Amino acid sequence: MNTFGHKFRLTSFGESHGEAIGGVIDGCPAGILLDTDFIRSELDRRKPGQSDLTTSRREPDRVEFLSGIYKGKTTGTPIGFLVRNTNQQPSDYDPLETVFRPSHADYTYQYKYGIRDHRGGGRSSARETIARVVGGAIAKQVLEKQGVSVIAYTSQVGSIQLDLPYSQLDFHFIEQTPVRCPDPETAGRMCELIRQVQSEGDTLGGVISCVCKGVPCGLGEPVFGKLHAALGNAMLSINAAKGFDYGMGFAGIHQKGSEVNDPFYRRADGQTGTKTNHSGGIQGGISNGETIYFRVAFKPVATLLREQATVDRHGAETVLKMSGRHDPCVLPRAVPVVEAMAAMTLLDYYLLNNAGGHDETSFSR
Amino acid sequence: MNTFGHKFRLTSFGESHGEAIGGVIDGCPAGILLDTDFIRSELDRRKPGQSDLTTSRREPDRVEFLSGIYKGKTTGTPIGFLVRNTNQQPSDYDPLETVFRPSHADYTYQYKYGIRDHRGGGRSSARETIARVVGGAIAKQVLEKQGVSVIAYTSQVGSIQLDLPYSQLDFHFIEQTPVRCPDPETAGRMCELIRQVQSEGDTLGGVISCVCKGVPCGLGEPVFGKLHAALGNAMLSINAAKGFDYGMGFAGIHQKGSEVNDPFYRRADGQTGTKTNHSGGIQGGISNGETIYFRVAFKPVATLLREQATVDRHGAETVLKMSGRHDPCVLPRAVPVVEAMAAMTLLDYYLLNNAGGHDETSFSR
Amino acid sequence: MNTFGHKFRLTSFGESHGEAIGGVIDGCPAGILLDTDFIRSELDRRKPGQSDLTTSRREPDRVEFLSGIYKGKTTGTPIGFLVRNTNQQPSDYDPLETVFRPSHADYTYQYKYGIRDHRGGGRSSARETIARVVGGAIAKQVLEKQGVSVIAYTSQVGSIQLDLPYSQLDFHFIEQTPVRCPDPETAGRMCELIRQVQSEGDTLGGVISCVCKGVPCGLGEPVFGKLHAALGNAMLSINAAKGFDYGMGFAGIHQKGSEVNDPFYRRADGQTGTKTNHSGGIQGGISNGETIYFRVAFKPVATLLREQATVDRHGAETVLKMSGRHDPCVLPRAVPVVEAMAAMTLLDYYLLNNAGGHDETSFSR
Amino acid sequence: MNTFGHKFRLTSFGESHGEAIGGVIDGCPAGILLDTDFIRSELDRRKPGQSDLTTSRREPDRVEFLSGIYKGKTTGTPIGFLVRNTNQQPSDYDPLETVFRPSHADYTYQYKYGIRDHRGGGRSSARETIARVVGGAIAKQVLEKQGVSVIAYTSQVGSIQLDLPYSQLDFHFIEQTPVRCPDPETAGRMCELIRQVQSEGDTLGGVISCVCKGVPCGLGEPVFGKLHAALGNAMLSINAAKGFDYGMGFAGIHQKGSEVNDPFYRRADGQTGTKTNHSGGIQGGISNGETIYFRVAFKPVATLLREQATVDRHGAETVLKMSGRHDPCVLPRAVPVVEAMAAMTLLDYYLLNNAGGHDETSFSR
Repeated sequence: MNTFGHKFRLTSFGESHGEAIGGVIDGCPAGILLDTDFIRSELDRRKPGQSDLTTSRREPDRVEFLSGIYKGKTTGTPIGFLVRNTNQQPSDYDPLETVFRPSHADYTYQYKYGIRDHRGGGRSSARETIARVVGGAIAKQVLEKQGVSVIAYTSQVGSIQLDLPYSQLDFHFIEQTPVRCPDPETAGRMCELIRQVQSEGDTLGGVISCVCKGVPCGLGEPVFGKLHAALGNAMLSINAAKGFDYGMGFAGIHQKGSEVNDPFYRRADGQTGTKTNHSGGIQGGISNGETIYFRVAFKPVATLLREQATVDRHGAETVLKMSGRHDPCVLPRAVPVVEAMAAMTLLDYYLLNNAGGHDETSFSR
Repeated sequence: MNTFGHKFRLTSFGESHGEAIGGVIDGCPAGILLDTDFIRSELDRRKPGQSDLTTSRREPDRVEFLSGIYKGKTTGTPIGFLVRNTNQQPSDYDPLETVFRPSHADYTYQYKYGIRDHRGGGRSSARETIARVVGGAIAKQVLEKQGVSVIAYTSQVGSIQLDLPYSQLDFHFIEQTPVRCPDPETAGRMCELIRQVQSEGDTLGGVISCVCKGVPCGLGEPVFGKLHAALGNAMLSINAAKGFDYGMGFAGIHQKGSEVNDPFYRRADGQTGTKTNHSGGIQGGISNGETIYFRVAFKPVATLLREQATVDRHGAETVLKMSGRHDPCVLPRAVPVVEAMAAMTLLDYYLLNNAGGHDETSFSR
Repeated sequence: MNTFGHKFRLTSFGESHGEAIGGVIDGCPAGILLDTDFIRSELDRRKPGQSDLTTSRREPDRVEFLSGIYKGKTTGTPIGFLVRNTNQQPSDYDPLETVFRPSHADYTYQYKYGIRDHRGGGRSSARETIARVVGGAIAKQVLEKQGVSVIAYTSQVGSIQLDLPYSQLDFHFIEQTPVRCPDPETAGRMCELIRQVQSEGDTLGGVISCVCKGVPCGLGEPVFGKLHAALGNAMLSINAAKGFDYGMGFAGIHQKGSEVNDPFYRRADGQTGTKTNHSGGIQGGISNGETIYFRVAFKPVATLLREQATVDRHGAETVLKMSGRHDPCVLPRAVPVVEAMAAMTLLDYYLLNNAGGHDETSFSR
Repeated sequence: MNTFGHKFRLTSFGESHGEAIGGVIDGCPAGILLDTDFIRSELDRRKPGQSDLTTSRREPDRVEFLSGIYKGKTTGTPIGFLVRNTNQQPSDYDPLETVFRPSHADYTYQYKYGIRDHRGGGRSSARETIARVVGGAIAKQVLEKQGVSVIAYTSQVGSIQLDLPYSQLDFHFIEQTPVRCPDPETAGRMCELIRQVQSEGDTLGGVISCVCKGVPCGLGEPVFGKLHAALGNAMLSINAAKGFDYGMGFAGIHQKGSEVNDPFYRRADGQTGTKTNHSGGIQGGISNGETIYFRVAFKPVATLLREQATVDRHGAETVLKMSGRHDPCVLPRAVPVVEAMAAMTLLDYYLLNNAGGHDETSFSR
């Protein structure tokens, strides 16, 4: 259950304060010239200490590739990689060996396994997403050759919401704001809110939106492998994710069928398209060639710099007050993780797709 | 991809107007005395013609078990079953052989496979959920022996929303209202709205909420097998589902960490519990023993009794007007499907759980 | 674990004396025009009562397809099918409810599941292979379009061995002998031996050889998905199979490397071939374009018409004497089962193969 | 396809002359105190340079654990590990970049992937078994707590065969002979033969036998997850394996049913046993509590120190003569690999087994 995917598969390992975080990517097509600078830049987007909005820990997060690449190209064999854990201050975590942090995974891990590495959250630490970002950075490079792009951004922080649809946004602004919101004015208000809440020792949640362009028609497998179910599963596997919707999603509930059905029409290039895209690029669980878009809800960070009631391993009630370096809002750093999971899902379904239909050597001819 | 689950597995088959809908349940524990009346009653909850809110088609939907049961008990071998399709009027569907219904799966199936059984939606028909309901009815019976219950209800239709949290609802009312909403007054308004929209040839969507009680602590597998990700995947595999959230979900975004963290405390029975349950019974992807609750968003039914612009298989633009018997709102009949998918997911994860921790013969002793 | 395959998947269900034997084939490419007469003829090859060498039970074994086929063609959706069980004389099996037949699955099923359908062996009956033969008959038709053929034959019965290599055999004789051995003289001696042993109430085992021609180069996945490991797994899943080898197999142990290495050469068509084929068409777990051949060892049938010492469900020692209609040698009827499992395996690996190399749209271009 | 197992899963990565060989073990039960000295000693058993019978390369093969272990105990999270590649002399392999070694995986990898790391066989190198031995060494430690032992030995080299059944062998001698044959006299003759053939620049194959004691009754899943099929699949995934049989195997073909059926009897402890064990501890695909034993055939090593005809990447015929350090017979070093694969398979099926029957909290009570 530490493996993601069917044909393009990421197996991840590692705890926050163990030796290393890493993974194995199996099923990557052969012959891809990998841009390792790009992989590094993706890791930089998720690492702490990027701005005053994120934890000030500094983790160089240098990725080392151990296999599967020869003369810069993928060979089709498994790509092993690791990132060493450094800058560890495990004694910070000594009290957490016996006390459970509220709304963290401490208690459930202890119950399930009877043992856990409590330091920095161990396996349930956000550091685990390093492996996902590496996998996603490779998937993105394969998808790019097929004309597929995946872009995510922060669309809500607390109650501050970006109301514009994706088609009216300029994605070039995303990386120019510390909160990764493509509307500079909204981004500014989000940052301000985060700083204020941080000063209170409190935390915020929000929504990340993701837009996938160029996805070919036909990806997705009925009935239990619907493409949006796979995307939902991928997103909900990210730490702190509490919800997922795609296309019109929860918002579409307020509308009638006649308002949200997407009429088909003949595009200028002769292909079939839809005039609107309330479906979100997926119909019957299969991509229809339109842009795929979805949202992921993240809860406020569970680590507060305030006193909280809790219990210890022996069931005795106690009070916990965390100190140290913690993100007040996970969203800015979760943006590349959402992209990574989306990219791996799309590539996996791209590779799964040989149904006998339109795009390939037909079995029936 | 027509198989759901890891240890408790449902493989489903069948088209709306083929010979039969059916499935194979593999991995059901042996020795369970099955109550076939209960399975039949669950099928009755999803069948058409239950009330004036649903399509008036009458389908007896008699399930026949073919294997895996001996003297009324499960034997641990695969349970094959089928429901014959009757009352077929395939000529109703003749125009749909070449014309794509907007926001249905017609176009994407045709593109992916190059061929499809267009009659009644073929494989993408809601009739496919028969197999799920049978699987769920068996899973519920196994779960019941472990003290686990799964109950779903309609919590929103169009803009009419049931605002009460699950803890303040009397679930006995659910089956007493045609819309399966446990608050009779809200249910009445929902029914009225559905009838009105139906008279306009239009359709509605909504939200189904689901509550799972008695789930033991420790179910869920890090990091890509989180219990809520599995539930999300299951729910998003249901036709017309557009979104999923659990616990505080999308609503929790507006709150701060200090408002939504769930403090641990020592319960009267000496066990560890949480005072609040914003987490929704799952922390770090693993059940914590509290009640699990989640929501599923459904889009308005795509089949309208109105003219809609579309194209045919040759890409030519045309106009489609459907007639006949169709649900104006999928929610009342989707309630047992949501329960079925939840029950199968929980049982699957129950059977998957032998991590070495609290509840079982420990490997380390 | 009642599902076989990754992309082309057979899920089977059914007990010998339950309602039906059947299955679901998922992942069959769309658009294949199925020859149902061929499927029926394959079932005829495995059914009892074909000759005086097999049990005299008569089972019509009429297959009914329930889904996945539209106007005679596969649609890419699951193909559900069943064969009703008829001609049941369950009272024959009454003593077996409490007594375990030696070297059968009675005891292990009872232990594992705590319950079993004892009639005719229940799930462990050879009737279960009906589902395999249906799956194989469909796989063969898909493979045939790719130029792949799969032919098996009896190469040993007891100590009577067919010594000729596959290249010197005329496969047209296979179906002309009741024992399915392509050398009529050897076949005659095999039949004679079977009749003699049968008259003693005893049974025989033997070897089935299988030859797969036209398999394209590149099938098989390193390192745990080697093509021969998949074939071995498939063959060893057949009832009564005790061993598997491919290429030179166990016989090659006696030779040196210089005697069995296969030198590469340039074939007349410019392609690379091997001058000899001790490798059996697979190198490093991947097909090399040469003919694949392998052997499967079957033990003597466990059902004897003689007294045997055994115990009952309560552990008390007793004596069992079976009567009735039983095959003295499983091999003639197992030949189509070996072919079916080989065909499903090859098609599965054909569909799995999109590594980025020679045969497909390369990702690297 | 670089992942082995269902619940206890090994994902391996690494090429012979890349940075490292390693893997991730997922699903190991929590709370196991690992003996790392034992893991190291198992690696020593597979490493080159142990005796004059094996290649003289010296590889320290120091394993580094990266995750999943806390204070010496498994935590239930993935165990990442690696062994750095050292002592690389890749220039030795320069000619092999373009020329295919006969009966190696060079040609098939090149065809399948269009690219390969030719150095030392790349991914198809026997060095890949390092990951298996680490996984097996951990599985053995878990199994030991359940009373299960797994022991393999060389039972045939070329035509020199150890004729004694496992019950008459003293396994303490295995590690005292360089060829790992428990009969010192036979071992001596095997060593002599290997040295002689080595001096001719030629190579040998043989058979490894494996004996698993203490396996509880009930492991194995019908019908496509039979325990012996899983073992066969595991063994055939080892480099150079050409065949597998269990129990009486291929040898049993020559006997009649009455000679090989295993009568049940009541053991002194009141349990049910079999008087003989031709079944090899598995009946109907499920372990019956008796000793499991099986054989694996290995072909002669493909790397000869002689001239061989072959072709290059452009299809041109050429002659290849390898030099350097190569094993003349793979068997002595393959013994721990056979044990490792058997141990991982047995533990995987141990963890898979919760069918509802004898050994666990029954669902039916």
